[in-house]
Amino acid sequence: MADVIVAGVGQTPVNEHWGISLRELAFMALEAAQKDAGGLRPQALFVGNMLAPQMSHQAHLGALMADFAGLPGIEAVTTEAAGASGGAAIRMGYLAVASGQADVALVLGVEKFTDQIGSAIEAALATAGDSDYEAVQGLTPTAQAALLMRRYMHEFGVAHEAFAGFAVTAHANGVGNPHAMFRKAITQDTYQRAGVVSDPLNLFDVAPVADGAAALVLTRPELLPPNFPQPLVRIAGSSLVTDTLALHDRPDPLALQAVRLSVEGACARARITPLQVDLFELYDAYSIFAALSLEAAGYAERGLGWKLAQDSHLSLQGTIPISTLGGLKARGNPGGATGVYQAVEATLQLREQAGQNQVSEARRAMIQCLGGPASTVVTHILERMA
Amino acid sequence: MADVIVAGVGQTPVNEHWGISLRELAFMALEAAQKDAGGLRPQALFVGNMLAPQMSHQAHLGALMADFAGLPGIEAVTTEAAGASGGAAIRMGYLAVASGQADVALVLGVEKFTDQIGSAIEAALATAGDSDYEAVQGLTPTAQAALLMRRYMHEFGVAHEAFAGFAVTAHANGVGNPHAMFRKAITQDTYQRAGVVSDPLNLFDVAPVADGAAALVLTRPELLPPNFPQPLVRIAGSSLVTDTLALHDRPDPLALQAVRLSVEGACARARITPLQVDLFELYDAYSIFAALSLEAAGYAERGLGWKLAQDSHLSLQGTIPISTLGGLKARGNPGGATGVYQAVEATLQLREQAGQNQVSEARRAMIQCLGGPASTVVTHILERMA
Repeated sequence: MADVIVAGVGQTPVNEHWGISLRELAFMALEAAQKDAGGLRPQALFVGNMLAPQMSHQAHLGALMADFAGLPGIEAVTTEAAGASGGAAIRMGYLAVASGQADVALVLGVEKFTDQIGSAIEAALATAGDSDYEAVQGLTPTAQAALLMRRYMHEFGVAHEAFAGFAVTAHANGVGNPHAMFRKAITQDTYQRAGVVSDPLNLFDVAPVADGAAALVLTRPELLPPNFPQPLVRIAGSSLVTDTLALHDRPDPLALQAVRLSVEGACARARITPLQVDLFELYDAYSIFAALSLEAAGYAERGLGWKLAQDSHLSLQGTIPISTLGGLKARGNPGGATGVYQAVEATLQLREQAGQNQVSEARRAMIQCLGGPASTVVTHILERMA
Repeated sequence: MADVIVAGVGQTPVNEHWGISLRELAFMALEAAQKDAGGLRPQALFVGNMLAPQMSHQAHLGALMADFAGLPGIEAVTTEAAGASGGAAIRMGYLAVASGQADVALVLGVEKFTDQIGSAIEAALATAGDSDYEAVQGLTPTAQAALLMRRYMHEFGVAHEAFAGFAVTAHANGVGNPHAMFRKAITQDTYQRAGVVSDPLNLFDVAPVADGAAALVLTRPELLPPNFPQPLVRIAGSSLVTDTLALHDRPDPLALQAVRLSVEGACARARITPLQVDLFELYDAYSIFAALSLEAAGYAERGLGWKLAQDSHLSLQGTIPISTLGGLKARGNPGGATGVYQAVEATLQLREQAGQNQVSEARRAMIQCLGGPASTVVTHILERMA
C-alpha cells in the first residue's frame, strides 16, 4: 500500500445551523479543504453521512455534493455506519488513493440534525441500533448509554461524579476552538449540579447533536507540487471492525471488543503501540463511552478509565490528551461528520496549527469513531512525516 | 491493481417478500454466495442499500448484517448511491480486495420496499433526486422518466409503441429465470394495451419495485484453493462516474453523459471496446433509460436506441443481448440490490450456468446501474478467465 497523506483540511463551525442548508455546509468544508491543499484536483469524493435521508429527505449525497461543489463527473458515493460514518468515509478514501484508483480524493463528513425537533432526532438516531429488537422497545442511544453507565457504576463501585473529568476536560478544550459549539469551561461542581437526562446520565454526560461539515483532501506524497505549503501528515494505520449490533448479544457489555480489535489493527499497520500516540481523539458521545474506550484501547485497566480523567492524564499537558479541541462534548457531535472533524483536528495538532490548544511535540494521533454501542469502530493513526 | 475474481454468487427470488425480514433476505443471499465459493472466510462486507433507513427504520446495515450472518468482527459498511448503491458496493469491495486490505470480501445488495404502500415507496424513491428543488415539487422518478420519454418522442419523432421491444425482451427472458418476479412473456399487443402510469409511460415501461438480496464473494485468484469448483470470472474493469443530480441542469437531458464516461472508463481499464462485450446488463428501471443507455454506451446512434429492441438485436441470440435474465423489468428492481443481481446474473452467464437463458459463448459482460437520472453510473466489466 502506498503512503496516503492528508493534504488539506476544512471545517465549518459546529452549531445549530438553521440558516444554512445541508449542501451549503458541505460546500463550505469542501472549499476550505481544497484551498488548504493548494487546489489539487480531486477524482473522487467519499461522503460520510448518517441521517440525511431521514432528517432532510435527501439520499444520493455523493452525486448531490459533487454537483454542488462544481466537480461534475467525479466518482462520488456515500458511506454509512451510523456514528462511524465519517471514519468509514476516510477509510474508503484511503483505499481509493492507496490502491491508485484515485490520485486525489476528497472525504466529506456532513450532517444536519437540528432542523427537526429533539424527539425526531432521537428516533432517527435509534435506527443505528436494532430496529426490530431495540428501537421498537424505546431503546434509544441515550437510554442505552444510561444502562451501560449504571452497569459500570454497579460493577466497579464507581460513583456518578467520577465521570466529571471527561466533561471538564472537553469543555476546557472547547474554549480554544473557534469551531466548537460550546466554548465555556465548566467545573466539577457544574457537572454535579446538572439535570438528569436519563438516569444516571446527566446533561454533561451527553454530547450535543449538532450540524456541521468537515473535509479532507487525500493524496499520495509524490503527487504534491514542490514547495507544498503544509507540513505533511500521513495516514499510517486504518482499521474498521464490527461487533454485535446489540449490546444484549455481548458476553460482557463493558468490554468494547471492537475498540480493542480496531486499535490493534490500526496500530499494527502503523507499527506502533497505543502508548506511542501523542493524542487520542476518542468518541465521547457519552462520557461512559470515553471511559470504556480508554480501557479497551489499553490506556487504563478495566473499571479505571474514569480515573485517567480525574487525575488530569487527559488534559492537553497530560500523558494521553483526548478531545483536544473539545471532542464531541464541547465541539459538538454532527453525526456522520464527527469522524472527519476528528481527522481535521488531529491534522491541525500534527501540523502545530492548533493554536492555544496545541499539544506540544505532537507527532502521532489516534482518531476513533463509534457506530451504535461500538458496533462499528473505525480507527486511524495519523503521523507527521519528517 | 491485482486481479479480483468473483468466487461466489448468491441470490434470493425477487418478489414481494412480506413474510421475510430485511436481515433474513440478506442472510439467504450471503449464505448462498459463501456456499458457492466453497467457504472462503471473508474479512469484509460491503452492503449496497438505498432506502432501509426510510422503509424499514433501520440504518447501520453493515454491523447488522455482519452480526446476523455470523461474521462478528469483520469490516462492514454500507454504501449508498440511490439506484446505483449495489454497483457502488461492488466497487468498494473491488478496491478493498485489489488493494490487499482484504483477501476475501463479501458484497451484499439488499432492499425491502414492499412492506409500505406505493405512495410511501415513491416518496422515498424521490429522495434520490434533489429534495429541495425537485421532490418538493412532486417530481418523482416516475414523473421524471415520463418527461424524459416525452422529450425523446418529440425530439426524434418516435411513437410510444417503438419502446415495446424493451419490455418484450425482458419478459421473454424472465420466463427462464427461477428468481425472476415476472415469468410470463408479453407481446407487442400486451404492451400497447397496458394502462398509462404517467403519460406517456405505461405499466410496461416501468420496472416493478420489489424485495430481494444478492451477494458476491470477491477474492484474488492466488488465494483460491486448488481445484476450485467454479469457472473463474474476473472484474476486468470498474468505473463510477457522476453527473448533475438534476436533469434540468444538463445542457442535453437526452445524452447520459455519465453513462458514456463510465463505459469508457470501465472499458479502458479492461482494455476493450464496448463492441467486445457479449452481453450488457443495463438499467431498465424505465424503458426510456434502456434506450438512452444503449445510445450513450455506443451501441446505437442518438435517437435510435429503441430500434435495437425492435430489430431483435437485444435478444439472447442478438448482437448485444440485454436483460438476459429478465432485467429490472421482469426479474424486478430491488433498489440497492439491483446492481448486485446484475453481477450475479452476468457471472452465471460467463460460467455457462444460465440454463435456458444462456448466451452462447459469453466471455465478457458489461453490467451497469444508475442512481437517479444517471446522476451516478457504475459500470463493471466481467470476464471469464481461460
